[in-house]
Amino acid sequence: MKNNSLDIVHTQYLTFAEPPDMLQLKSGRRIGPVTLAYETYGKLNPAKSNAILVCHALSGDAHAAGIHKDDKTPGWWDDMIGPGKALDTRLYFVICSNVIGGCKGSTGPSSINPETSKPYALDFPLITIADMVEAERHLIDHLGIEKLLCVIGGSMGGMQALQWTSAYPGRVLSAIPIATALKHSPQQIAFNEVIRQSIMADPAWRKGYYYEHGQPENGLAVARMIGHITFMSDQSMEEKFSRKLKNDNLSFQFVDDFEVEGYLRYRGYNFVKRFDANSYLYITKAMDYLDLSGENFIPDIKKTTIRFLVISFKSDWLYPSHQSQEIVRLLKRKHAYTTYFDLISTYGHDAFLIEIDDETRLIKNFLANIEH
Amino acid sequence: MKNNSLDIVHTQYLTFAEPPDMLQLKSGRRIGPVTLAYETYGKLNPAKSNAILVCHALSGDAHAAGIHKDDKTPGWWDDMIGPGKALDTRLYFVICSNVIGGCKGSTGPSSINPETSKPYALDFPLITIADMVEAERHLIDHLGIEKLLCVIGGSMGGMQALQWTSAYPGRVLSAIPIATALKHSPQQIAFNEVIRQSIMADPAWRKGYYYEHGQPENGLAVARMIGHITFMSDQSMEEKFSRKLKNDNLSFQFVDDFEVEGYLRYRGYNFVKRFDANSYLYITKAMDYLDLSGENFIPDIKKTTIRFLVISFKSDWLYPSHQSQEIVRLLKRKHAYTTYFDLISTYGHDAFLIEIDDETRLIKNFLANIEH
Repeated sequence: MKNNSLDIVHTQYLTFAEPPDMLQLKSGRRIGPVTLAYETYGKLNPAKSNAILVCHALSGDAHAAGIHKDDKTPGWWDDMIGPGKALDTRLYFVICSNVIGGCKGSTGPSSINPETSKPYALDFPLITIADMVEAERHLIDHLGIEKLLCVIGGSMGGMQALQWTSAYPGRVLSAIPIATALKHSPQQIAFNEVIRQSIMADPAWRKGYYYEHGQPENGLAVARMIGHITFMSDQSMEEKFSRKLKNDNLSFQFVDDFEVEGYLRYRGYNFVKRFDANSYLYITKAMDYLDLSGENFIPDIKKTTIRFLVISFKSDWLYPSHQSQEIVRLLKRKHAYTTYFDLISTYGHDAFLIEIDDETRLIKNFLANIEH
Repeated sequence: MKNNSLDIVHTQYLTFAEPPDMLQLKSGRRIGPVTLAYETYGKLNPAKSNAILVCHALSGDAHAAGIHKDDKTPGWWDDMIGPGKALDTRLYFVICSNVIGGCKGSTGPSSINPETSKPYALDFPLITIADMVEAERHLIDHLGIEKLLCVIGGSMGGMQALQWTSAYPGRVLSAIPIATALKHSPQQIAFNEVIRQSIMADPAWRKGYYYEHGQPENGLAVARMIGHITFMSDQSMEEKFSRKLKNDNLSFQFVDDFEVEGYLRYRGYNFVKRFDANSYLYITKAMDYLDLSGENFIPDIKKTTIRFLVISFKSDWLYPSHQSQEIVRLLKRKHAYTTYFDLISTYGHDAFLIEIDDETRLIKNFLANIEH
């Protein structure tokens, strides 16, 4: 255990919206009860003014930092959260919850539908980024926090951060959207649609009602392989794999000749063990539906003093820098206090998980200047 | 019929390598007989010095120009081939053949294996770009042509053009590789691998032996959808689709809400009707195997006077301009006569099929200066 790492951490659960108090969703449907899995790191100060909400990306979960007692895998942003780190747990109370629609302890399509005592499957209502934030708002209420010092996240986590400032501008002092967008471009929708089609094309998907039979493994693995290509840059793939062969010679068979092929197969089929196929459908759809452009975003920003730190990465072609620049232009037009960095990195979209030094320097400095 | 279009054209067939005279493949295996489907446009001059070989891309065929009697769909490069066009059929004898491994009349995995009287399926040997060119060389011999005035093609067609100059430098006066590469990058291999995995993950693929049962429709459709994303640019998708909805409102269901989703589904499932899934596997593998970099390419270029026109498109991210620039650097290092244009276009990789005016101007001028 490095002395700047958190020790054992625990996942906690909050259940709310017990019927008849349902959670109202943007689709018009209602759902309840809703459980959110969440973790917290550091201590909430007596004024309850030092809380930072971390929002995860597509396949993330509540386990952002530290290790669990029975699993030594550190959380997905462990390099960023802990004593002395970017989100310094000696100063801040850091919260991370699994999104609604997910499969890591929060209510989603694989959860039991109380009406049928079976998994919801496709009876689960479509959810939006706004619904995710609404569920998180219940958690923040439960923790007794009136104002979040900061909401931060990369990719879909950044979408939630933006949605928080839009839906609850009075409850957020600052936001750090990283490698994200106000809305998906048609290319981003297209990749998500092919991901969904890949899952839904697998007969083992059984129109979504597969839980008694097991996952649509092949469809989900192919879907994740598509994702992995988009997470890396052309250059980072070249540096990591080039045209290196797995064996000495080309096989002249339909096997994985190149290391990059073996990598994709491994990552794809490994994902099947840890993620629910229907959750992948629901969450990608939520991302595609988001549109915070123009007047959709923070209609009353002038009444707020939210500070924004926007970060993008030059080699990120899935969420290209121009999308972050669109966020910045919109914020400037609304006279929001906004700082923007387009960081040099070869890691593509994955950079938000990797470029820890640059992010730490920017975020530490930014947070130190938020008055609370 | 526009007066600059070809009239009715016919597909012809050449069969060679009748056993025991088999075609030797790079894999070490031999195959025969081999049939190539091909079309010709214009007239071969008495000196047989005006022949241009057009090589097609991944899903192309021998029908490059004109229309068939029973099908009014013009050939895939009809805008480029005909009287007065870039490949002017008043001046040149233009040849286009379907590649070996294909499914449009040439011998491929869906052809009948003479040893079993059933389709080859996965018993078909893996083929390479060099094997495609070797088969084309038989056709050129059959037509009595000693030297081709030019070999031209986009994408995989450009790979064949480069391979021709490498394998038969004495039989080619000029080459025009468009939107192509000396070798696939790991990102290009990765996309092809996911395409193959998508097909092979479909239980209807039946390990390749599906011909009695029909195509692995879902796997092939998803594979083609992935392809279509890579053929377009972010910008051309934005211009064509933006976030336009198919209906007035979001459905909050797993249907194609956005026009771009409907487009992909249509193109994907339409492809199933016209292309063999196994051919898609074989041809993508052939592309991945090609490596003409460094000393693999034209070892005896100094003995030749082949002229090269290399063309790329700025928005093509599947075959990015830097790959064409790598071709140019290699040719310059080998003292080949090389002209290079990096054309402005928003159409991405599809540009080689769309940017007719620019291509016509460059190619006409280039061909006019080839002495024959």
